[in-house]
Amino acid sequence: MPSYTAPTKDMSFLLHEVLKAEKLEIPGYDELEPDFTAAVLEEAGKLANEVLTPLNVVGDQEGCRLENGVVYTPSGFKDAFEKMKEGGWTGLDMPEEFGGQNMPVLLGTAVGELFSGANQAFTMYQGLTHGAASAILAHGTDEQKATYLPKMVSCEWTGTMNLTEPHCGTDLGLMRTKAEPQDDGSYKVTGQKIFISAGDHDMADNVIHLVLAKIPGGPDGIKGVSLFIVPKFNVNEDGSVGARNGVSVGNIEHKMGIHGNATCVMNYDEATGYLLGDMHKGMRAMFTMMNEARLGVGMQGLAQAEAAYQNAVEYAKDRLQGRDVTGPKNPDGPADPLIVHPDIRRSLMDQKSFVEGGRGFLLWGAQLIDQAHRAEDKEADGLISLMTPVLKGFLTDQGFDMTVLAQQIYGGHGYIEEHGMSQFVRDARITQIYEGANGVQALDLVGRKLAADGGKPIMAFFELIKSYCKEQNGDEMKDFIEPLKEASKHLQAASMYFMENGMKNPNNALAGSYDFMHLFGYVCLGYAWAQQARAALDALAAGATDATFYETKLTTARYYMARRLPATGMHLARIESGADTVMALDAEQF
Amino acid sequence: MPSYTAPTKDMSFLLHEVLKAEKLEIPGYDELEPDFTAAVLEEAGKLANEVLTPLNVVGDQEGCRLENGVVYTPSGFKDAFEKMKEGGWTGLDMPEEFGGQNMPVLLGTAVGELFSGANQAFTMYQGLTHGAASAILAHGTDEQKATYLPKMVSCEWTGTMNLTEPHCGTDLGLMRTKAEPQDDGSYKVTGQKIFISAGDHDMADNVIHLVLAKIPGGPDGIKGVSLFIVPKFNVNEDGSVGARNGVSVGNIEHKMGIHGNATCVMNYDEATGYLLGDMHKGMRAMFTMMNEARLGVGMQGLAQAEAAYQNAVEYAKDRLQGRDVTGPKNPDGPADPLIVHPDIRRSLMDQKSFVEGGRGFLLWGAQLIDQAHRAEDKEADGLISLMTPVLKGFLTDQGFDMTVLAQQIYGGHGYIEEHGMSQFVRDARITQIYEGANGVQALDLVGRKLAADGGKPIMAFFELIKSYCKEQNGDEMKDFIEPLKEASKHLQAASMYFMENGMKNPNNALAGSYDFMHLFGYVCLGYAWAQQARAALDALAAGATDATFYETKLTTARYYMARRLPATGMHLARIESGADTVMALDAEQF
Repeated sequence: MPSYTAPTKDMSFLLHEVLKAEKLEIPGYDELEPDFTAAVLEEAGKLANEVLTPLNVVGDQEGCRLENGVVYTPSGFKDAFEKMKEGGWTGLDMPEEFGGQNMPVLLGTAVGELFSGANQAFTMYQGLTHGAASAILAHGTDEQKATYLPKMVSCEWTGTMNLTEPHCGTDLGLMRTKAEPQDDGSYKVTGQKIFISAGDHDMADNVIHLVLAKIPGGPDGIKGVSLFIVPKFNVNEDGSVGARNGVSVGNIEHKMGIHGNATCVMNYDEATGYLLGDMHKGMRAMFTMMNEARLGVGMQGLAQAEAAYQNAVEYAKDRLQGRDVTGPKNPDGPADPLIVHPDIRRSLMDQKSFVEGGRGFLLWGAQLIDQAHRAEDKEADGLISLMTPVLKGFLTDQGFDMTVLAQQIYGGHGYIEEHGMSQFVRDARITQIYEGANGVQALDLVGRKLAADGGKPIMAFFELIKSYCKEQNGDEMKDFIEPLKEASKHLQAASMYFMENGMKNPNNALAGSYDFMHLFGYVCLGYAWAQQARAALDALAAGATDATFYETKLTTARYYMARRLPATGMHLARIESGADTVMALDAEQF
Repeated sequence: MPSYTAPTKDMSFLLHEVLKAEKLEIPGYDELEPDFTAAVLEEAGKLANEVLTPLNVVGDQEGCRLENGVVYTPSGFKDAFEKMKEGGWTGLDMPEEFGGQNMPVLLGTAVGELFSGANQAFTMYQGLTHGAASAILAHGTDEQKATYLPKMVSCEWTGTMNLTEPHCGTDLGLMRTKAEPQDDGSYKVTGQKIFISAGDHDMADNVIHLVLAKIPGGPDGIKGVSLFIVPKFNVNEDGSVGARNGVSVGNIEHKMGIHGNATCVMNYDEATGYLLGDMHKGMRAMFTMMNEARLGVGMQGLAQAEAAYQNAVEYAKDRLQGRDVTGPKNPDGPADPLIVHPDIRRSLMDQKSFVEGGRGFLLWGAQLIDQAHRAEDKEADGLISLMTPVLKGFLTDQGFDMTVLAQQIYGGHGYIEEHGMSQFVRDARITQIYEGANGVQALDLVGRKLAADGGKPIMAFFELIKSYCKEQNGDEMKDFIEPLKEASKHLQAASMYFMENGMKNPNNALAGSYDFMHLFGYVCLGYAWAQQARAALDALAAGATDATFYETKLTTARYYMARRLPATGMHLARIESGADTVMALDAEQF
């Protein structure tokens, strides 16, 4: 069975030595003292390691089942969910008035990685609840907040997001689910939604569905979509759970992975719903928390890569196979461990440099969300909006690739389900698809975010990298700054190409959007690694006791610069080849 | 349910317009007239499309089961296997004296892709039989050949290859299975083998296991390994099936994919075996057909990519979602088909340019095998030995990536098992692992093949590309030749780097082996695309009626040059960064 150890040490390093969170002028960050965050991460890590990890394989093997309209989660999930509730984890970054602890998103993201790395399918029940609660918090009436939030923050009730229908996912303007207004101000919601994560289950007293639907007579397309609160059980005046609403589970999907999560077909049959936010502004309401939600999916991709990497390292150290070409390293044994072989290390270093660099990028993104919301910093808001598709698309694409690399280290043993390496691959795969497929992220990035606010955010990003490079001009940082400069030039050249050629034909930009997203991601990880190298150099200069930790950081940063960052040139070349060869064929020529 | 259409037209183009097979001076190639190959491919295509394709999903969903020692294949497999036997497909390239048709490997490879693309798990029962029969053909005594080959060529009996044991896969010197000599010249084979594809089943009267084992008292390690024929049922003097041998199935593995194939744990308990080939030369005997077997796995990776691509194209044409940014293409419909979107095309073109370029590479490899064996051409033998790890490693790595791209086009519908896209990904994944994991292919390429025969094969390869580029110096070929030259220079620079730095420290070469394998693959596909462009230009100049086919080839070749080939620069940069950052960490630092 695969193991998982919460990477709390790396998180503490990033929070306090790289981001220096407790010193940032963001409301609430003063509470993030190292001792405090260490205690929180330790507690979360305990839940992750001891409770959630052992259930990961159980969830994969048993899956969820639907019997007589009731969804049953895998053995052990219910007890674990009780422990999740007891810890109050869903409320970590929720307002105190609804039972939360009002901690920054930064800390919530670190904790989220621990849970997700231990058991993605399980953690989604809580994650979706958090998302739905956030939407109610942002758009609900006082009454709605009072009715739903305390129960959702405590996870007594869970939440879902209902967007997709059989014929539409990305293009929600095609939606058919309708909501008929009733005399009492409520609506009757009717339609079918698919791919509803955590759609139903046996771990909570109620499920609060947020459902996108059209009010008849409203505007066509996406402009006529509104958001509704549709509880599984109606809620009585006194807040207790009442009669069953017209909501039922049509089916549980058979998926490639995340078997422990009940991905449901949800049928709404004149179900009572309540408008959440403004009429016809459903998309806006649903997407208020989009940056956070997408960052959360990027986190999931990273978390699976971390978990898979940990197991690959253990296997590479244990499994004896072949001899070190420069001389035996385990001369008394029948063979040397896999880890002596250069190509095994190439794979492990690819994984390690992604996981730790990606985590730096992720936590920086989370910090920007706090800065935008808590400090009402407009530049941070622009920056995180720009980087959100990169956080989602790059971390999940690479996260998936890394789980494949980790699985490969096991050889044939990785392909059989016994060792759990296949599950990491299968679970990570969904992160590239949901919450906006990665192609849609790339479209958002190049089609919308690049030009947003007159291009201010992207200029601010370039300025940030440029001034960092200027500031870090010492010899000791040269190995990191020079490659970062070069990669950043590639990103600028790509933006320039879009500006010059996208006007003529938008396809010139869109045909390069996916490569741009990756190019951007490589630069962000380059920046994250330069920062980590800086912090490591500082710690070593200050005579840190744990020199090995910092030296490892420096070596991994060097690896990233030498072996990962050169991908930017390839992406630029693809981008600069334009749309011609991409768009030349008629549909029938494929 | 996913569909599959045998890509026979592209195969005919490659066989006759690119390779010009019927004109090559290789014994037997004169029979490969276009009408003949078209008839063979059509017949194979019919079996693939009509019989094997519908069983692909059945095999995935039902899997194989072991009941009271008997292995049952999925519903319909047995009937389909009868049809496979009736067609005599296993014997296509086997000698006539054993019931075969003595066709070149070239044609066998094309046919193999059709079967594999339709149903990989099913086709493996036949493929393993072919492999085992080839080993008996190469190393068996006349009596052994007479006993086993006619039945295996007809697939009345099937075959397996038994190498892996629980504690050793790549490093077979650690093997524990032993073979005790008996007075009658036979051996008693005892031990456990794992991951035995097509290990047992209910579709044939006997299963002929080829088993690697050690004769006690022989040399240590790999030099003491011999190869044995161990039939499931002993064979009577008259050739009929006799009593059960000491062979049993311990278990069927639960795997990520190829569920329709029974991957077995095989237990040998004093089973009667017969030495095949020379004592202690088992590895050599097992690997005689290695080039062919590994090319066959490369073919499987390609075949899955082709099948997945076909379905992705259909979905992209059918699924209405969003609007063409340059103006609606389906104004009367609620939305445009996915295929209007540049990023969808980027993905489809990546797939198309891989599949068709890869097929050109594959068939060229198959032709070289024929040239080496049938024409006893030493240069061809050197070249195919050099390129075999590239054919295996590159085509399966990229083949897998392409199935992921194809799945991604389906969005959420790709993640649920209903559409079958997940199966392509899960089935393709094994091709990167078995028949020598791809890291081992890279090691073989850089650690062995590059320096083989004083470097003659690699020099011959460079010379081949160079002279082709010189020959194709017309303006019309410039778009293809210039990028190919550039990529070939990268490959030469990488080889030079290995020569100059590998002596000092072999890790400098081995740390770049994986990138070298990919760099090599990109160049080979570049060459394949240049050749296809040449053939397309020739056909158009000759006034071909099907101009669209050839124009599509030219566009796809341009896409490959502009968007795929630039990867070579990245791989070179990774290679030239050497072993330092790869090897710097101690095992404990991971």
